[in-house]
Amino acid sequence: MRLEGIFAALTTPFGTDGSVALEKFKDNVSRYNRTGLAGYVMIGSTGESVLLSREEVDRLWAAARESAAPGKTLIAGVGVESTAETIARACKAADLGYDAVLAKPPHYYKPLMTPHALELYYRSVADASPIPVILYSIPQYTGIPFTAEWVAQLARHPNIVGIKESSGNVSLAADIVSLCGATFRTLVGSAATLFPSLLLGAAGGVLALACCLPDITVEICDAVRSGDLTRASVLQQRILWPSRLIAGDLGPAGVKHAMDCVGYYGGPPRPPLLPLTSAQMTSIESAMAEVMAAQMANSRSAANWP
Amino acid sequence: MRLEGIFAALTTPFGTDGSVALEKFKDNVSRYNRTGLAGYVMIGSTGESVLLSREEVDRLWAAARESAAPGKTLIAGVGVESTAETIARACKAADLGYDAVLAKPPHYYKPLMTPHALELYYRSVADASPIPVILYSIPQYTGIPFTAEWVAQLARHPNIVGIKESSGNVSLAADIVSLCGATFRTLVGSAATLFPSLLLGAAGGVLALACCLPDITVEICDAVRSGDLTRASVLQQRILWPSRLIAGDLGPAGVKHAMDCVGYYGGPPRPPLLPLTSAQMTSIESAMAEVMAAQMANSRSAANWP
Amino acid sequence: MRLEGIFAALTTPFGTDGSVALEKFKDNVSRYNRTGLAGYVMIGSTGESVLLSREEVDRLWAAARESAAPGKTLIAGVGVESTAETIARACKAADLGYDAVLAKPPHYYKPLMTPHALELYYRSVADASPIPVILYSIPQYTGIPFTAEWVAQLARHPNIVGIKESSGNVSLAADIVSLCGATFRTLVGSAATLFPSLLLGAAGGVLALACCLPDITVEICDAVRSGDLTRASVLQQRILWPSRLIAGDLGPAGVKHAMDCVGYYGGPPRPPLLPLTSAQMTSIESAMAEVMAAQMANSRSAANWP
Amino acid sequence: MRLEGIFAALTTPFGTDGSVALEKFKDNVSRYNRTGLAGYVMIGSTGESVLLSREEVDRLWAAARESAAPGKTLIAGVGVESTAETIARACKAADLGYDAVLAKPPHYYKPLMTPHALELYYRSVADASPIPVILYSIPQYTGIPFTAEWVAQLARHPNIVGIKESSGNVSLAADIVSLCGATFRTLVGSAATLFPSLLLGAAGGVLALACCLPDITVEICDAVRSGDLTRASVLQQRILWPSRLIAGDLGPAGVKHAMDCVGYYGGPPRPPLLPLTSAQMTSIESAMAEVMAAQMANSRSAANWP
Repeated sequence: MRLEGIFAALTTPFGTDGSVALEKFKDNVSRYNRTGLAGYVMIGSTGESVLLSREEVDRLWAAARESAAPGKTLIAGVGVESTAETIARACKAADLGYDAVLAKPPHYYKPLMTPHALELYYRSVADASPIPVILYSIPQYTGIPFTAEWVAQLARHPNIVGIKESSGNVSLAADIVSLCGATFRTLVGSAATLFPSLLLGAAGGVLALACCLPDITVEICDAVRSGDLTRASVLQQRILWPSRLIAGDLGPAGVKHAMDCVGYYGGPPRPPLLPLTSAQMTSIESAMAEVMAAQMANSRSAANWP
Repeated sequence: MRLEGIFAALTTPFGTDGSVALEKFKDNVSRYNRTGLAGYVMIGSTGESVLLSREEVDRLWAAARESAAPGKTLIAGVGVESTAETIARACKAADLGYDAVLAKPPHYYKPLMTPHALELYYRSVADASPIPVILYSIPQYTGIPFTAEWVAQLARHPNIVGIKESSGNVSLAADIVSLCGATFRTLVGSAATLFPSLLLGAAGGVLALACCLPDITVEICDAVRSGDLTRASVLQQRILWPSRLIAGDLGPAGVKHAMDCVGYYGGPPRPPLLPLTSAQMTSIESAMAEVMAAQMANSRSAANWP
Repeated sequence: MRLEGIFAALTTPFGTDGSVALEKFKDNVSRYNRTGLAGYVMIGSTGESVLLSREEVDRLWAAARESAAPGKTLIAGVGVESTAETIARACKAADLGYDAVLAKPPHYYKPLMTPHALELYYRSVADASPIPVILYSIPQYTGIPFTAEWVAQLARHPNIVGIKESSGNVSLAADIVSLCGATFRTLVGSAATLFPSLLLGAAGGVLALACCLPDITVEICDAVRSGDLTRASVLQQRILWPSRLIAGDLGPAGVKHAMDCVGYYGGPPRPPLLPLTSAQMTSIESAMAEVMAAQMANSRSAANWP
Repeated sequence: MRLEGIFAALTTPFGTDGSVALEKFKDNVSRYNRTGLAGYVMIGSTGESVLLSREEVDRLWAAARESAAPGKTLIAGVGVESTAETIARACKAADLGYDAVLAKPPHYYKPLMTPHALELYYRSVADASPIPVILYSIPQYTGIPFTAEWVAQLARHPNIVGIKESSGNVSLAADIVSLCGATFRTLVGSAATLFPSLLLGAAGGVLALACCLPDITVEICDAVRSGDLTRASVLQQRILWPSRLIAGDLGPAGVKHAMDCVGYYGGPPRPPLLPLTSAQMTSIESAMAEVMAAQMANSRSAANWP
């Protein structure tokens, strides 16, 4: 399994009646297959995981497995409040042929979810999961901050292989990299900090923005690897505003509308997530238009090179 | 429907294999039927709602309906992240003959769950629910604080009839009472503030502590109603420490062990909730022993009265 | 020294040129002398302590000492960031004949102000202060929450005699009362929770609202002591809204305008505190008019009693 | 005035009797004059500003002005709670020949310090200050987060020329850069994020770490400017751990001990800041030894180059 590069945190398409639109989903995946994305995260926060029934999750997982091109790494979002149900979902994902699972921490009973309780949770999941486990740090949604030391302790478990760090705290990501070593994979969850994180040792990113801008995010990663930091820096600047607007402020609804702008199927979010206002739609449309124009200018000038 | 007095926020008993122990649950309810409790909340935070599958919830709801004595008000905890699933659960509860539903706010996508988004959520649920809706304020778990003004706006909806206010903020409860009027029922969720809240106009409480100490919590409420505030004050002092220790610090596992101390079936919590350490068990046992001794001394002296 | 009942947290009057208006201050104190207030807190948060120079503080302390009637307890707000400067201020207050000092915790270096560091701070101040020390819990301004256990540890120091608990958390106040015993004085800092706090064992209150409504706050305290809880409850309801509006939402500027409404000198706050908008002024005026009308109706009906 | 590159946030040396050790301070500055530091910030958070009297501040400012080499930019930390006192300090700094002032937001009355109130504060200060004003974002101490949009609004004021952004949030720094343009100078306050921030357009840093490691922090900045991003990345990795340990976890006491390790005078912090434990001292000593060893190995290998 290749756990580096850019992973798209895929959205879940809904039809006009609110049900899961499986065919639209498969069409999206077919297109993503032709990009340089390293793989897909199925049913994370961007995938509106908490708004789906277990049965819907299973159908989406199966559809992704079926549609994903060979070589694309498949990661299943399995973290729910119950330890047993998290394990059950990890086993299901393994059965379907997934490569790894991603588990956010249980967080409803915040004051009881001490570092010790969460360590036991992750150890139970990692012991029982037939496929490797990736930790998921997203304190803005869970209210549970991770420390680098706590992550490093869990990183010693042979079946815990990485972390998706979505707090946006670049220092934390750098600390995790330096305490956990290179075999433990730190993937950042925020496109706004992709370039600096890669520079400080992150292995890649799991990005909502990669749903609407897969090529440019992949290009940033490739530029860093090939040492072209100036190019990476220019591209990072280019996605700063879209990243903040689309994935940061507007959530799944924003990502979906940006996908609609560039030919993927986005569609509406599921309530209680609100549909975008027309002002929000317009902002996204101009942000996307600006990025696409800059990218095209680029490739034209590249094409002119002898 | 009687929406005042003390409601027990019932726990969910699990057997040694981790599955729901329905017979134990029914036995508990039979005993609660003989107390002065106004009714039961089925599947709230104390009931480990977020650790149960939908099927387990349905079976527990049916069992409660079957076991509850006539006259006991039955309230179903229905709030989940998805608006549609919350409504589906409210309809199911209504079908089973429940009196009202209690809905915590969706909270995973915190930055997107603006007051406006949450208002739409609650209006959708209240429009669709065949039985009255009770709001649920529990910011220590959800990260979503309610303001009295926001509650007052929702209180105008004819199918939103009350609130369970579990933040422990007595001023907030008092503000809600004064802004929403007497027909809107404010039930507090914290035994530690029961007496002052009743004095400031709360209609009652939905209490985890009522699972292990139903009589004394009911007695506080009765004493306030009959104007015996000195008695209420003494009793409130008596439950202060157990309330803090059992329901506050130790959560469902604490409540369950306290139930075991007085002959109800408590049993273990479901992971990732941790079982109690033996030191924690001992603290609960002595807190419970102290309250029971004080209560018995009381009734003996009462019995000696001519 | 009498450390129970209602203390006014006095405001600092400023003239039109922004300087301290000492004569206005003395006039206010002369009027407060004729009320049932137990004493005055000089230079706390309501007194805009952090906006005054050390020299202004000294002049105000001297003026209060000179103007206060015999029998009124005088408490000096001395807590600043530096331990040595806090002690110097405590010594100055003692020299001037103050009865006790009130010290908020140093809080600028929040992550370094551990419970241990703060314990050392308070022990140093209490060891060096010639007069008794009162702790000051106001996490909404300092970001430093106190726990009841931590307070109880400090309460064993012979020169630490009480706490002003301004968080508004009634359970915390009750826990402090029950862990620290009756000789340690718990004074609450929020008029909105005065009645319930007194019922649960608080010795009184240090209230901004007592600057504009001294009589009614004293009356609540007296009613609780004489066992007339119904009267206390009615009066508490009466001040709920003014308390929230004036002291809670609008801070020193609100308290000052409410003082202006009833014949005390309030005047403007010092920048960066904003002057009130006219809408805010009008709200305060009507809240005050309502309370005064209710109080007058009361005393008229009392006067008619044979 | 040159407002780019690395500025040391100077510490305030205290003697064994707790008083300001002016000679030690001047000695430190003489040594810093021989480094590539762009200038000095006098009396910021690292300088224990809130623990100094106004008179001590004035003496330190004068000493720095006297000792600083020509060409070193001098920035005075002037932000206190009162608007008028902040302005008075800015005027004093201007009189002494300082180049700019740095003002943290007033924050004690948090709920009243709305974006509007803070905007008025900064406009008043900028209107009245004879020298340019730099905003100061340090929410971990003040509890006041700045948004990029709010900063951009203030950046239009002709006398507000930059910001010290110390939250460590690299995305925020990048947003400020992109919204405020290049003439507005964004200086980051955290060495841990120096390299990525420079890459995303920051003009430099105001760093506590520059007190003990001036050369390496300057070298990172120079490497980025000259396009040697690989070198910058290696050096950034090298300071990651010291930065976190010394400036992050241990505050002024940590910085001072690290200064003692390399021949500057650090000395003790002023209470309530705690002196370091011997374990903390040892950690700092080994972190510093490691960095110095790596730097020497570097320069040796550089010296061996033909």
